[in-house]
Amino acid sequence: MRFKGPNGPTGSASSTPVNVTRHGLHRTGDDTDYVAVEEPLEIRIEGRAVAVTMRTPGHDLELAAGFLLTEGVIDGADDITAIAHVDDPSNPRGNTVDTRLASGVEAARRSAADRSLFASSSCGICGKESIDRVVLNAPELTKTLTVADPIFLSLPDKLREAQDVFEQTGGLHAAALFDTEGSLEVIREDIGRHNAVDKVIGWRLEQGEVPIDDRILLISGRAGFEIVQKALMAGISVVAAVGAPSSLAVSLATKSGLTLIGFLRDGRFNRYA
Amino acid sequence: MRFKGPNGPTGSASSTPVNVTRHGLHRTGDDTDYVAVEEPLEIRIEGRAVAVTMRTPGHDLELAAGFLLTEGVIDGADDITAIAHVDDPSNPRGNTVDTRLASGVEAARRSAADRSLFASSSCGICGKESIDRVVLNAPELTKTLTVADPIFLSLPDKLREAQDVFEQTGGLHAAALFDTEGSLEVIREDIGRHNAVDKVIGWRLEQGEVPIDDRILLISGRAGFEIVQKALMAGISVVAAVGAPSSLAVSLATKSGLTLIGFLRDGRFNRYA
Repeated sequence: MRFKGPNGPTGSASSTPVNVTRHGLHRTGDDTDYVAVEEPLEIRIEGRAVAVTMRTPGHDLELAAGFLLTEGVIDGADDITAIAHVDDPSNPRGNTVDTRLASGVEAARRSAADRSLFASSSCGICGKESIDRVVLNAPELTKTLTVADPIFLSLPDKLREAQDVFEQTGGLHAAALFDTEGSLEVIREDIGRHNAVDKVIGWRLEQGEVPIDDRILLISGRAGFEIVQKALMAGISVVAAVGAPSSLAVSLATKSGLTLIGFLRDGRFNRYA
Repeated sequence: MRFKGPNGPTGSASSTPVNVTRHGLHRTGDDTDYVAVEEPLEIRIEGRAVAVTMRTPGHDLELAAGFLLTEGVIDGADDITAIAHVDDPSNPRGNTVDTRLASGVEAARRSAADRSLFASSSCGICGKESIDRVVLNAPELTKTLTVADPIFLSLPDKLREAQDVFEQTGGLHAAALFDTEGSLEVIREDIGRHNAVDKVIGWRLEQGEVPIDDRILLISGRAGFEIVQKALMAGISVVAAVGAPSSLAVSLATKSGLTLIGFLRDGRFNRYA
C-alpha cells in the first residue's frame, strides 16, 4: 500500500501569519508573526472515527499509518489496503483520514480501535480509559545497534540544519531517523512530538521497511514513556533526545533493551539505558 | 468539598535518581542523574475509569478535580462530594483517584465521562474520538483583566525562582497563577503541561474560587489550543506563555476575548489576541 500522494489539506503549510503586537522594555509595535499551524486530524477505520490528534497539517497519511502501527492495530503496510483523506461536510478542511484494513487484521485489533480505547498520538497514551490499556505489548527487539559516541554528538547540528528549512515559528517539534553513520534519512515536524514520531515511522512503513531496526530515532525535545513505547512498537532500538527523559521512559527502555540517550546537546549526552 | 490531604502516592517525589553514563568529547563516566517521575493516574467517577493521564505524582486530587472542571464535567467544587485515592490490587501505587459527584450533576455530563469520550489531561484533547468532541462550550468570559507591560515582563523570573525550589531534572513543565500586580499565588509542576494547568485550576477550585477571573495563568512552555480551552473552562481571561502559541490557540483566544501572550522572556513578549 502506497500512502504518499496528497498528504494534507490543500495549500497546507506548517506555519501561518498572525497579527501581533510586540512589547519590550522600550518599545511596542504592531507586526506580523508566524505561528505553528495546529488543527485536529480525525483518524477513521472503515468509516468509524477512532481518534483525534491535534497535529500540524501535512504528511497526514504517514501520520495515520504510523499511528495505527504504534498503537498496535497493524503490523505493516500490507495491513492497510486503502488510506485517503475523505470529505466530511461538517469538517471540510481535509482534516479526516479514513483507512481500510486488510481482511487478515485480527478482529481483536479492529475492535480495540472501534471502541476508541486507544490514545491520540498527541500524547501517545492519554485518552486511554484505564491503566491496563496504557502499556502495549511491543514485539521484542531483534537487533541492537552500535553507535559510536562521535556519531551521537553530530546529530543535533544535523537536525537543527534540516529543521531550519521548515521552521519559522519556534513552535514545532522534530523527529528524525539517522543511520549508524549519522546520515539523515527522514525528518518530520509537528506541533505534537508524538505526531512527528508517528510521521517518520509512517514514512518508513510506506517503504515497507518495518521493523526499523537499522536506524536511530532522534527527537528535538523530551523523551517520555510514550515516545519509547512508539519506538518499541516500530522495532527501533536506539532513541536519542535533545531534552530530558522521564522515569518511566528510562524504566521501559531498560526493561526492553532499548538504548536511551538524553540531553544530547552542547557536545555531550547521557546514556540512561 | 476539600480535596487537600494526602495528595499523592506515599513518599512521592517529583524526581527520582537513575544510573547514567555521561559522554562528552573528552570523557565518559558513570554518575547519578535525576529524572522527572512519570506515572499513570487513572481518574474514576464513582468507580468507573474515565481517563488516564501520565503525570508527575503529587497534588493528584487537585489534578483530578481540575481535570473534571476543564473537561466540563463539573462546574465547581460543590459538584464533587468525595475525592480520594483508592487502592486497586492491580495498581497498588496510589495511582488511582475516585470521585463521587453531587446528585445535581446532569446525567449528560456524567454519561459523557462514562463513555470515556473525553481526553486525558496529558494533552488536553487527544483521545477524543471525533472532532465534534474536541471543542467544549466554555462559559463566556465575564471580566477581562488589565495587566501593565512591566508586570508581564516580571513574571518569567518569578516563575523560574519558584521552579528552582522543585526542579532538578530539566524535565518538568510549570503552570502558575499571578495576580495583576505580579504576585505569585500558586505554582504546580508536572511532566505534562496540561496536568500542571489542571493542578493550579484544581487548587483554586478547592478554595471555592472559580471562575478564576482575577488571575493571569503563566505556563513555562508553549500554548496550544488545549491550554487556552482549559483556561476558558476555568474563566481565566489572560494566558501568558514563555514559549510559542499555536494557530488554533490564537484563533480560539481571539474569538473568546482572551488575552494571549507568547514568547514572554528576555524582556519582551508578543500579544497575539
